[in-house]
Formats: sequence, structure tokens, C-alpha cells
Amino acid sequence: MSFHSEAWSEDPQNVLRVGPGFRLDAVETDSTPGFKGGKKTGVAELARVVDTLSDLQERLHAAATSGATDSVLLVLQAMDTAGKGGIVRHVVGAVDPQGVQLASFKKPTAEELAHDFLWRIHKQVPADGKIGVFDRSHYEDVLIGRVRNLAPAEEIERRYEAINEFERELVDSGTRIIKIMLQISPEVQKKRLLDRLDRPDKHWKFTPNDITEREVWPDYQEAYQIALTRTSTDYAPWYVVPADNKWYARVAVQHLLVDVLSEIDPQWPTATYDVEEARAALQASKV
Amino acid sequence: MSFHSEAWSEDPQNVLRVGPGFRLDAVETDSTPGFKGGKKTGVAELARVVDTLSDLQERLHAAATSGATDSVLLVLQAMDTAGKGGIVRHVVGAVDPQGVQLASFKKPTAEELAHDFLWRIHKQVPADGKIGVFDRSHYEDVLIGRVRNLAPAEEIERRYEAINEFERELVDSGTRIIKIMLQISPEVQKKRLLDRLDRPDKHWKFTPNDITEREVWPDYQEAYQIALTRTSTDYAPWYVVPADNKWYARVAVQHLLVDVLSEIDPQWPTATYDVEEARAALQASKV
Repeated sequence: MSFHSEAWSEDPQNVLRVGPGFRLDAVETDSTPGFKGGKKTGVAELARVVDTLSDLQERLHAAATSGATDSVLLVLQAMDTAGKGGIVRHVVGAVDPQGVQLASFKKPTAEELAHDFLWRIHKQVPADGKIGVFDRSHYEDVLIGRVRNLAPAEEIERRYEAINEFERELVDSGTRIIKIMLQISPEVQKKRLLDRLDRPDKHWKFTPNDITEREVWPDYQEAYQIALTRTSTDYAPWYVVPADNKWYARVAVQHLLVDVLSEIDPQWPTATYDVEEARAALQASKV
Repeated sequence: MSFHSEAWSEDPQNVLRVGPGFRLDAVETDSTPGFKGGKKTGVAELARVVDTLSDLQERLHAAATSGATDSVLLVLQAMDTAGKGGIVRHVVGAVDPQGVQLASFKKPTAEELAHDFLWRIHKQVPADGKIGVFDRSHYEDVLIGRVRNLAPAEEIERRYEAINEFERELVDSGTRIIKIMLQISPEVQKKRLLDRLDRPDKHWKFTPNDITEREVWPDYQEAYQIALTRTSTDYAPWYVVPADNKWYARVAVQHLLVDVLSEIDPQWPTATYDVEEARAALQASKV
């Protein structure tokens, strides 16, 4: 059963999902699909749902201690400044860090490049009971990989199906996958990059390479369009989240996460020991 | 420079530190050394200092991106139910998960046992810019290791010096180490274990082994006394935190963490690119 909240007129699972005929260029980056209110309501909703999310995460963890094999994997992809970091900080950061397994995929090392592109990914899939978060992911290998010709065309081509098979296997072994693309407009990116240049305490977040990547924005959009449509499956769907409004992106991703955890509906394990016996032994303890 | 807060009459770095002549059995587990108020003030202080801690963590992370090699390692040790999990959740959990590297050391695997006891520890030391947290640690190898005779006496004996050398090397390479032992009374442990038995949603946190370990409480206290006094060094001191009051333990550990980060005093990196040039290029961007 999905999560229901009065703040939404439609479930983000429905309105944000990449389905047949999806066009990335039709996404309105400043829209707030399915959400009833504005920023004030959104910020309040984010805080209000934290307890629900925390409770579900703890149940997921607890269930795994008695053999449940469920886990969740949240994949985050976006152009620079779209707000991946804010999702990690404000959505994922609200739950117990002991239940989260965060992996950040940067430019591959020489050792990683000497293996198949999924090699480093396999090593970071979430353990039973964990919420795994990928800050960038195997999708970089069909995004920057495609835009910058980092591999031959037929290898890039091969990867879409390899990704679908990899994700299929992951889902079959008990992992629910939520794939998020945060979509901003190039104008909002320019504003956010300029803001980084205006503030000395943000200078470290900027590199001239951000401009170089920005110059090929249309190429990235095309690479995303292809990746989104070829790898949005019924078992591992993509959601494109309009992210000009940071508060909306956060509350939408939180809702998607709570949806999936509610569907798993993890249960507190029942005791594998005799509770009365344990209580008596403890009461009799001389220490 | 240490962190100063009006809520404290004395810095926990001074009042909780294990120094010459330290006696673990003299620690009053229900005391709140150095803190001026009670629970209400403590809870408010914990929330108030979150911004300071978050800001310092972000600076630590930022400084590492321009070559600083500073990191922090928080080692957590305690008897069961003393509140390690709560420290991770409420103190560490308040900062950006991207800046935290959490390692939980459980019963060693066969592969780990086939190596020196520090082998699995080395692999988890924090990267530059990270706050590492050890939930249990290499100290288990001189605690349960000693109490349960898991290694020959001369091997246990060897480990204290091996630990000191390992920590010395870690500190020399830029890691500040804060070692915390949360100390509760056996009565409080009994109460907390009974609480777990009373609540079906807490049954999974209990195992009959908790009683077995509790039976040798004095042996553990002796093993702690030896470990604390032999490995509390000027470069990697131990702090024993009275933990019958969870709010006190949390606010004390938070203060110790902020102290060390304030001493590092990490700085925002200066731009390695020409800011004006970058701004002009961005403004001229056709995207």
C-alpha cells in the first residue's frame, strides 16, 4: 500500500513516473506536480513526514535482523547544482545514519576503468535492511559516457540492456529501486553557479569545468532522454522531479521513498527466545 | 581553540578525561559533570549546537577538497544499552551524512580472524575531511577478548601497545581521535533490558546473550579499567561519559566533537581559478 498524505492531490509515483511517450523537454522545471500547496506547506510537510520515514526505516532494519531480505536503493542523477546534495542532507539525513548506506560515484579510478562499468556499482549495493543511496551511479556511463565519447558507440549501446539486467537481478534479490532525475532549467543553473561565485564560502564548490559541462547541456538532455526511456522499467522506474523549487524536489523524493517503504511494509520481528524466561532470568540477575 | 558554551561550567575535555590515577569505579553514572542545567537545558543545548557542528563539518569537508588532510575519528565503546546508538542517531545524525563515515564492528568474520586484529580497523579509518565513527572498535579485542579469553594472554598484552602505536600513526597523518566510553550502572542496564522485553517493537533488540554478558559485568569493568588507563594518551585521550542520563551523554559527546573540530579550525578554501573570469564566462554562456 502506498503512502497517503493530505498535502498531495496525486501520488508522485503516478505523476512523476517516466512512462511510454515520455519527453524530458516537456517537463516544466518550475512546476510542482501533485502537491497542493507552496513552499510553506512543503517545508512543513517535509518535517511532518520525518517520523513516518524514520519509523519505516527502523522497521526495515529490524526485519533484516530476523532474515528479511528487503532493502531500498535510491539512485540520484542530475545536472550540476540541481540539488542532489540537498536530498541527501534533508531527506536521507533525517533518518538514522546506521540504516543508510551512501555511495558517491566520482570519475572512475584506473582500477575501476580496468573492469566492467558495473564492477564498482555491484560493490555498493545496499545490504539487507539498508536504504542505499547512490549519488550519481552506473547511469554516468551512459550520460557523460555518451556525451564525451568515453567508450565506443557499441559499448554505450550495450550498457542500457546490461543496466536493465543488473537492476532486474537486484530487484529479484529483494532490493526496491527508486531512480530519480532532478530536472532544473539552464537559467536556474546559471543563477546557482553565479551564487557560488558570489560567496567565498562557496568557491570550493565551483570549478571551471562546470561551465564546460554546461556548454553541452542539450547533449546531456538527449543522453538523459535516451537513458530514461530505455531503462524506466516496471521493476525499476525512473521519476523525473522538477527541481527549480528545492522544497518541492525534497518533499517529492521523500514521498517516493515513503511509498516504497510502505509497500514493503516491514514488520517488527517476533522474539526467537522466550520473553517470560528472559524476564525472569534478568530479574534474578545478581549483578 | 576549544568551543565555549554558556551551558557548561567546565569543559568536558577537562572533567571527563581519563588521566593519571583514573578509577572507573569512582565514576558516578548518574552525574552530569560540568553541565549547568538539567534535562530541559540539555535537550535545548543539543539542538542549539547543531548549526555550529554542521558548519564545522562542512568546513572540514571543504578544506579537504583543497588538500587539507584533517579528519576526526570518534570511537564509541560501552556496555549494552548504554546509548551508543543514540549518540550516532542524535549527535552524528545531525550533520550531513555525506561528511560521515560510519563503521560498525561486530563479531569478526573468519577472514578477519585470519588477520591481525587491526586489519579490519585500518580499512575503516576516515578519509581526509570526514568524521569517522566507530561503533565498537579495536578495543573489543582487549575487552571481550580479555573477558572471554579469545586470545592468549600474551597476545592480549601485546595489543595495548599495538593500539597506541596505531593511534599515534593515525594522529600523525592528520586524524584527531576522540575515544568515548559511555558508562551506565548495572541497575540502569537492567531497567533498559526489561523495557526491551516489555515492548514487542523492541524484542528484536534483545538476545539472551545480553544476560550472559551482563553476568560478567565486573570482569568487563576490570578490562575497561586496564584498557582506559593504558591507552589514554595525550594524542588520543579517553573520555568516560556518565550515561544514565541519555541527554547528558549526547550533549557531552557533541561538545567533545565540537571542541576538536574547533581546534582544527578548518578554513574555506580559496578559489584556485579566477573568479571574475569564471563569472564573465558564465554570463556569456549561450545555454
